[in-house]
Amino acid sequence: MNFQYLLYKLEDGIATITINRPDKLNAFTPAMADDLISVIDHIDADDDVKAVVITGAGRAFCAGADLSSGKDTFNGEGDGESAVRAGDTVDYSDESVRDIGGLVTLRLYRCLKPIIAAINGPAVGVGITMTLAMDIRLASENAKVGFVFARRGIAPEAASSFFLPRIVGISRALEWCFSGRVYPISEIKDSGLIRKVCSEQELLPEAYAIAREIVDNTAPVSVALIRQMLWRGLDMNHPMDAHKLDSRVILSRGRSSDAAEGVVSFIEKRPPEFKNQVSKDMPDFYPWWDEPKYL
Amino acid sequence: MNFQYLLYKLEDGIATITINRPDKLNAFTPAMADDLISVIDHIDADDDVKAVVITGAGRAFCAGADLSSGKDTFNGEGDGESAVRAGDTVDYSDESVRDIGGLVTLRLYRCLKPIIAAINGPAVGVGITMTLAMDIRLASENAKVGFVFARRGIAPEAASSFFLPRIVGISRALEWCFSGRVYPISEIKDSGLIRKVCSEQELLPEAYAIAREIVDNTAPVSVALIRQMLWRGLDMNHPMDAHKLDSRVILSRGRSSDAAEGVVSFIEKRPPEFKNQVSKDMPDFYPWWDEPKYL
Amino acid sequence: MNFQYLLYKLEDGIATITINRPDKLNAFTPAMADDLISVIDHIDADDDVKAVVITGAGRAFCAGADLSSGKDTFNGEGDGESAVRAGDTVDYSDESVRDIGGLVTLRLYRCLKPIIAAINGPAVGVGITMTLAMDIRLASENAKVGFVFARRGIAPEAASSFFLPRIVGISRALEWCFSGRVYPISEIKDSGLIRKVCSEQELLPEAYAIAREIVDNTAPVSVALIRQMLWRGLDMNHPMDAHKLDSRVILSRGRSSDAAEGVVSFIEKRPPEFKNQVSKDMPDFYPWWDEPKYL
Repeated sequence: MNFQYLLYKLEDGIATITINRPDKLNAFTPAMADDLISVIDHIDADDDVKAVVITGAGRAFCAGADLSSGKDTFNGEGDGESAVRAGDTVDYSDESVRDIGGLVTLRLYRCLKPIIAAINGPAVGVGITMTLAMDIRLASENAKVGFVFARRGIAPEAASSFFLPRIVGISRALEWCFSGRVYPISEIKDSGLIRKVCSEQELLPEAYAIAREIVDNTAPVSVALIRQMLWRGLDMNHPMDAHKLDSRVILSRGRSSDAAEGVVSFIEKRPPEFKNQVSKDMPDFYPWWDEPKYL
Repeated sequence: MNFQYLLYKLEDGIATITINRPDKLNAFTPAMADDLISVIDHIDADDDVKAVVITGAGRAFCAGADLSSGKDTFNGEGDGESAVRAGDTVDYSDESVRDIGGLVTLRLYRCLKPIIAAINGPAVGVGITMTLAMDIRLASENAKVGFVFARRGIAPEAASSFFLPRIVGISRALEWCFSGRVYPISEIKDSGLIRKVCSEQELLPEAYAIAREIVDNTAPVSVALIRQMLWRGLDMNHPMDAHKLDSRVILSRGRSSDAAEGVVSFIEKRPPEFKNQVSKDMPDFYPWWDEPKYL
Repeated sequence: MNFQYLLYKLEDGIATITINRPDKLNAFTPAMADDLISVIDHIDADDDVKAVVITGAGRAFCAGADLSSGKDTFNGEGDGESAVRAGDTVDYSDESVRDIGGLVTLRLYRCLKPIIAAINGPAVGVGITMTLAMDIRLASENAKVGFVFARRGIAPEAASSFFLPRIVGISRALEWCFSGRVYPISEIKDSGLIRKVCSEQELLPEAYAIAREIVDNTAPVSVALIRQMLWRGLDMNHPMDAHKLDSRVILSRGRSSDAAEGVVSFIEKRPPEFKNQVSKDMPDFYPWWDEPKYL
């Protein structure tokens, strides 16, 4: 596990990803996006990872797109740190024109492990939109959040037009993106964006406590199914869609050794020992969807 | 009206359903699901029912699936109290493989009367997911709520992947299902799941007050339309879909005697006397949707 | 700019629309709907308008449908102030049968400028449903809100079955429409409907402060894109839909002079001067959707 802009560790089932470019306030670059996608690939494939905490090194979580290319930051002519990967074409008919932030959130969306963002400082632009495809967001008291796109002359990215209204409601989402303001966390703590505001010292312990409760008590295959059932449930047209899936999942998991262990351990009032693994024990109908292609 | 696991009464337009298996903390069984579906069928057909309150007998609302079959609880080989109705097949190509909780929530979803859940104690597993297709949830201070599926090695059911994110937001839904924890109601009272936490003594009076206001002031056909317009409005792609429906509903209802009575009684500052009935005065284009089939 | 029931002014980039029928508590009529649609058409075409505030003259915001036709209010046989425009037909196969409130909210939905409702008093029936397609709602302490349709024997309109559950959640939406009650604003201030409750004196200044922050700091083309991306993002099926759009928007806007100015002004710590205009600088793929037709 060798990353340019991330630190990675795994302890007792909990992976910690630390965005690590502290001299630049962890400003986002295409290389950092590559790192984030790679680390999620690794995490999904490693049965020893049962929950994920992601935070930033130094005093920021992620200050947003690296602006060192100045006026060329967003036009595809920057120095390789540009937020768009663009060839010469602008006809959008090939893969070369893709928003980098979206590549990250699309990968997070497909992840099979719970992801807890521990927002330890400013999270601005892609620094906050990337967290929208994570599951639970905690923030320290010195965190700040800004959907600053309209102040830079661009527009929300990282698929945030999908995620943000679903998390904070359409009205808050519009207000934050219209204003482009960087909000101190105290001002937006009741918006649904942040699960809990913690002191600086308590931020990571709180994140680990949430992760620990999951790791110690639940079946990893159940958790992987939950992550995909709930996120994708957002887009179902009718509860019948959920019912069809549930019926298959409940019977499939119901016949697993995990389900027997889950009930028996509960009756015996002892901790469960779940044996099924995400790498090989997902139901045979998983994935039950066709992941859409870009082209 | 003869049920194995329910009590039923109707007074002054308000039906009360009491889940009645108090020696088992109202643990859920297929027979209880049959009872719930039957009672909603009855309620929809009875014009004297204008609102519904549902609560539990004894100290629980519903403790979840009956676990008396132990390791066979969820594998279709239990003693008839299993949460899955399964034949020998696992190819999902017939109706025999269906999640029982989903049969209940799908029936609740189609109901034409407002449903208020008065959660009088623990509501765990299907005990809480069944309430997600009800309209308003009240809880007493001693209520507890747990989406415990991941601790039993299974996964959320009763179409809760459709309902839960729409009620409490995707982030809370994920957290509760990931952790599988049983939360005291005080810990989750601001989540949107529960309309109001009441003392034990005030729970049913509060539920009846909400029901009473509806019954005394509103037109039953309007209320039936509202229930289906709003739930199904969740899944519209564009406000034009709503506008097309509204245009038909407003004109159809606008020409009814109820609309005349509604305006005239308001102008005369007297209580309205609505005469139209759900059984025979719904618009001729109702239902305006095709209810999806399981197969 | 000549309206029967609206006042209009434009100052420093902020348009103010005042619903102006104070002797009737600004009761809604088809002519008022025509005025509202016209003023939004004007606002969208005028690059000098960068934000919109809408309020009511006198002590009400809008008391709802004009009921002066009594029993004929909603049957298409009223005196021209009826809330339905109906010909002789009831077969719904022509444009003549349309809910008037929906014509307004559908137009608001397509608007390219941010709209802030300053609800200065009672907002009842269409008086509140029309605001659901606006972006941010402020209310004064004496405001009241009522989804009274079930008390009039009709049903929610103005596409509110689309908008309301998305703004306040399905459970609140159902409760308010079932009860038909007019709620004092203090009772519903935490529902997500209202961004902030202000004293009467502070209502308009607060609305202008929100508008001013947008006008002074952000790029109008970005703001126009945000309004359409976020509202329409509500209905995307998958974040990939957002990602495809983002990729085009970010590159297109990223190559604009606004994006260069946005980054450079930020680096230079000076206010930005955005030159691109909504009338002629929207991306060439705008609109990226097919607006649905009524028939």
